[in-house]
Amino acid sequence: MEEFDFGIVGLGVMGRNLLLNMADHNFSVAGLDLDAEKAASLEKEALENHTIKGTTSAEEFCGLIRKPRAIMLLVPAGKPVDAAIKSLLPFLEEGDVLVDGGNSYFPDTDRRVKELAEKGIHFFGMGISGGEKGARFGPSMMPGGNAEAYERLRPIFEAVAAKVNGEPCVTYLGQGSAGNYVKMVHNGIEYAIMELIAETYDLLKRGYGVEDSKIQQLFAKWNESELSSFLVEITSEILEKQDEVTGKGLLLNYVSDAAKSKGTGKWTSQNAMDIQAPVPAIDAAVQMRDISKYKEERVEASKVLKWKDNSETSEEQIFEELTDAFYFAMINIYAQGMAQLFIASKEYNYGLNLEEVAKIWRGGCIIRAACLEDLRQAYTKTPELPNLLMDEKLGKALQEKQGAARNVVKTFIDKGIPAAVFTSTISYFDSYRSEILPTNMIQAQRDYFGAHKYERNDQEGIFHTEWV
Amino acid sequence: MEEFDFGIVGLGVMGRNLLLNMADHNFSVAGLDLDAEKAASLEKEALENHTIKGTTSAEEFCGLIRKPRAIMLLVPAGKPVDAAIKSLLPFLEEGDVLVDGGNSYFPDTDRRVKELAEKGIHFFGMGISGGEKGARFGPSMMPGGNAEAYERLRPIFEAVAAKVNGEPCVTYLGQGSAGNYVKMVHNGIEYAIMELIAETYDLLKRGYGVEDSKIQQLFAKWNESELSSFLVEITSEILEKQDEVTGKGLLLNYVSDAAKSKGTGKWTSQNAMDIQAPVPAIDAAVQMRDISKYKEERVEASKVLKWKDNSETSEEQIFEELTDAFYFAMINIYAQGMAQLFIASKEYNYGLNLEEVAKIWRGGCIIRAACLEDLRQAYTKTPELPNLLMDEKLGKALQEKQGAARNVVKTFIDKGIPAAVFTSTISYFDSYRSEILPTNMIQAQRDYFGAHKYERNDQEGIFHTEWV
Repeated sequence: MEEFDFGIVGLGVMGRNLLLNMADHNFSVAGLDLDAEKAASLEKEALENHTIKGTTSAEEFCGLIRKPRAIMLLVPAGKPVDAAIKSLLPFLEEGDVLVDGGNSYFPDTDRRVKELAEKGIHFFGMGISGGEKGARFGPSMMPGGNAEAYERLRPIFEAVAAKVNGEPCVTYLGQGSAGNYVKMVHNGIEYAIMELIAETYDLLKRGYGVEDSKIQQLFAKWNESELSSFLVEITSEILEKQDEVTGKGLLLNYVSDAAKSKGTGKWTSQNAMDIQAPVPAIDAAVQMRDISKYKEERVEASKVLKWKDNSETSEEQIFEELTDAFYFAMINIYAQGMAQLFIASKEYNYGLNLEEVAKIWRGGCIIRAACLEDLRQAYTKTPELPNLLMDEKLGKALQEKQGAARNVVKTFIDKGIPAAVFTSTISYFDSYRSEILPTNMIQAQRDYFGAHKYERNDQEGIFHTEWV
Repeated sequence: MEEFDFGIVGLGVMGRNLLLNMADHNFSVAGLDLDAEKAASLEKEALENHTIKGTTSAEEFCGLIRKPRAIMLLVPAGKPVDAAIKSLLPFLEEGDVLVDGGNSYFPDTDRRVKELAEKGIHFFGMGISGGEKGARFGPSMMPGGNAEAYERLRPIFEAVAAKVNGEPCVTYLGQGSAGNYVKMVHNGIEYAIMELIAETYDLLKRGYGVEDSKIQQLFAKWNESELSSFLVEITSEILEKQDEVTGKGLLLNYVSDAAKSKGTGKWTSQNAMDIQAPVPAIDAAVQMRDISKYKEERVEASKVLKWKDNSETSEEQIFEELTDAFYFAMINIYAQGMAQLFIASKEYNYGLNLEEVAKIWRGGCIIRAACLEDLRQAYTKTPELPNLLMDEKLGKALQEKQGAARNVVKTFIDKGIPAAVFTSTISYFDSYRSEILPTNMIQAQRDYFGAHKYERNDQEGIFHTEWV
């Protein structure tokens, strides 16, 4: 019986890449897959210094791993996770640690944590970001579960994670489904920033007829500035990729505009509504993907519903203001996501440390960005900061850039180009800085027609009025 | 044994008012409530021509009603509905009809329909709108369930419902939870229009310092125009109500601005995301109620995050443009809600007739408005209209009014006053009339970092590219 350091169930691209990443760091790793081809081919991919072994037998697999066992599942979320757990259970023992590395819906993780705790097995939900390449060479990893059991995982995870200034992009986040929740919000932020980039591209291309190459240069330039981020970087690369099918022009211009989604952005918005943590930019990004689906209706509507561009903003001015507007919107998006985590941590008793979250998002993951160091420092300074808009440094930057953001949004409106995420960040910012909101009117209406009662701003109590 | 026409379970304000409404129309009605006081006091409220009887015994209650029995539950949504069903079941027979008149979450209704169908009992979910007053003198009622069984309910419901030009504001909507679903979307629209009114009030009061009485006059004037609607009407009344506690000024100015909600607007948004039916105005209204909760944070933020009003729009111009902008936004809100119903009807196989929905919303309910007759006619003309923006008459009106709507939104932005719903309607309108959206960028990014593949716009197939 060998004594492997770690086991991975599911040898698809993600599982295999993560396994090879671990082997690179001198951990011995066993792989389990029901597909004999996948299990067998694993060892052929091994480099000289790798200690890896593939099998199709759960029993053999569990027998290979030193106790307490540390095993990660990299199978599709949902029923496959439960099936994988069931297949391993007969061969697991008290104290073993099982990590679900997929994008599981967080309540599923809470259920599994509870079920497996009854057998003395520690179940972790861990979000992994960085795609295939990240898995192979350094992802950002977001584990949640039992704090003590994390020690069994720590050396391996810290070795394989992405590093920023020598700090690994993985940390113990909190109990229960904390890891899945943080990853869910990560994906919500990802949705919003992707839509923000798409809107920027649309304003320049459709609104000003700017050439693709000039848009490419803008994103490339941004990637050397405070806007530097993975998504901005790949946008500049996408804007360079020529089409190989037709041999004519940019591939991007041949890509269909009906967007797909796997649902994690949607979960973020839906849960934000449950816990009353407003994330309007994420809501807007979700609905823009949805509206993109209605291609035929849009084609018909475009023939009938017309608007004549009456913008007076020059292309030159827009190029200047867009940079500040993008920064303004991006920080507002992170602020919404982080505020959701702040509220969720109390709601679900996760015990999240938001400084650590910002820290592990600086590298490896899809939403990595230069500004995350500023976010991290905001939380270093004020660990219980409810909203990043209240950080002195960030707040000051937003105040300075809000004028440009307002002008850019007005230009979208004058041009008749949709900017759901850009505009939502202005409304959010202005709502948040409103001492008094007009929701007194809503409370009065609710009491008028439904006798729902209201509170007053000058004295305690619950009131009802016969309004007429 | 008497032969009562109808039975009502739950003699709170809604149940009692509906019962008295039925008695007014010469139906004999039995009432059941576990609270002896409520059951006993019912008969004291009876007028001379009323045949009503209250009891605390489920057995006696069921014995009073002629077969097949028709019974409505008016108890709080959730467990009380299941408890009420359980208490009646021993005394019900095959063919009886049970109607849940509360705001039940539609999947709960689907479950109950199925469970009771096994016993041969027809279960209906029915949304009722109009508040206490509506229940007493004519609500809008939205029943869904078995079409044949509806005939047992029809004469009573048509008699007690609100009437518009002699047509009752009730109709058989469709199978399963169709009635609850339509009511849910009704409430989502209600949220959005209430927030729209609140934003209008905010722009005038906070943005221009307009006196309350002048704002009151505007809403009163609107109620005599194409904007005529219940919510506009009660807003003008709320703006007249003096405070009796302090004796000084408008009551509205003493009402707390932290809004409450009961969750039906949230369900609308959450389900819209599930079925990919974008309703951004409803999402925005939900999040504005949520953000209003964070009063302490807002007070702090208002001291730090400043913006200097740089609007050049005069008060006179705003008064002029607001009317068209409000119409533009209101129609967009209805369009989103009705499009959600169009999509949901296919998704859940409800078989909704949107002309009928518009028809029964014209009177009795909270979102009744003059424009609903136009909406109805749009569906009379094109029953399978996917979106009201595509109706010729409405589309033309929106095109004409969009300029004013754009100017008003830009004024909000210049003034730094949040307008989440107003702005979302512009983005929605501009998205819907976009033949091409920039979501090709999002698809390219997803393929870049996650190998999610994409479609092309020039040929069939699924593609993946190594982007660098």
